[in-house]
Amino acid sequence: MKLQKFNIADAKLVKSPGQGADIYVGNLVDERHGGPITIGYGRYAPNQTLTETMAVDDVMIVLQGHLVVSTSDGTVTAGPGEIVYMPKGTAVTITTEGETALTAYVTYPHWAALHED
Amino acid sequence: MKLQKFNIADAKLVKSPGQGADIYVGNLVDERHGGPITIGYGRYAPNQTLTETMAVDDVMIVLQGHLVVSTSDGTVTAGPGEIVYMPKGTAVTITTEGETALTAYVTYPHWAALHED
Repeated sequence: MKLQKFNIADAKLVKSPGQGADIYVGNLVDERHGGPITIGYGRYAPNQTLTETMAVDDVMIVLQGHLVVSTSDGTVTAGPGEIVYMPKGTAVTITTEGETALTAYVTYPHWAALHED
Repeated sequence: MKLQKFNIADAKLVKSPGQGADIYVGNLVDERHGGPITIGYGRYAPNQTLTETMAVDDVMIVLQGHLVVSTSDGTVTAGPGEIVYMPKGTAVTITTEGETALTAYVTYPHWAALHED
């Protein structure tokens, strides 16, 4: 594989699988490309909620807006330039408040392959 | 491991190993924590150059400023919100121009362990 540069305009955002909220994800690098990690962008509409148990290690970097992320240990709010690390097995609830949030994400291993059944 | 949130103020930035430029990196999650990936922040002073062959898969998310990244295939310039993916084995030259650049990075596997000899 070669070096690649991505912008959010490069991502084909589709509804995050397995839930109905207005939350969209777009992989730019994943299991189709032969490397070990998935890279993409996410967009969260205002006032959305997603509850998930992480099937992979997932790192979100907030680019715009804020995400409120809750686990049984408490709640964090992440804004632009902040990183949220959700290790595999973590049960999280991610919510947005009155603004859209944009994220970049990196997962190990590939999350999308786990949804292909 | 539990969910964690990081800000650049959480990172202890140290000079990037193996080179003399004013380029600093600070791991927040790495081989000390038992997971598969390293997460950190980087700070590049203006007018710096770093040449490296990637020992791991490395994803940089530009948070501030711009990075110019060259390989034998060409040159890309990445600004805020853009992602540069440098697969393992890629030979890169990273430069900054007249402004400081800040990045978040994620690597698989852990890069720092490779420098511990």
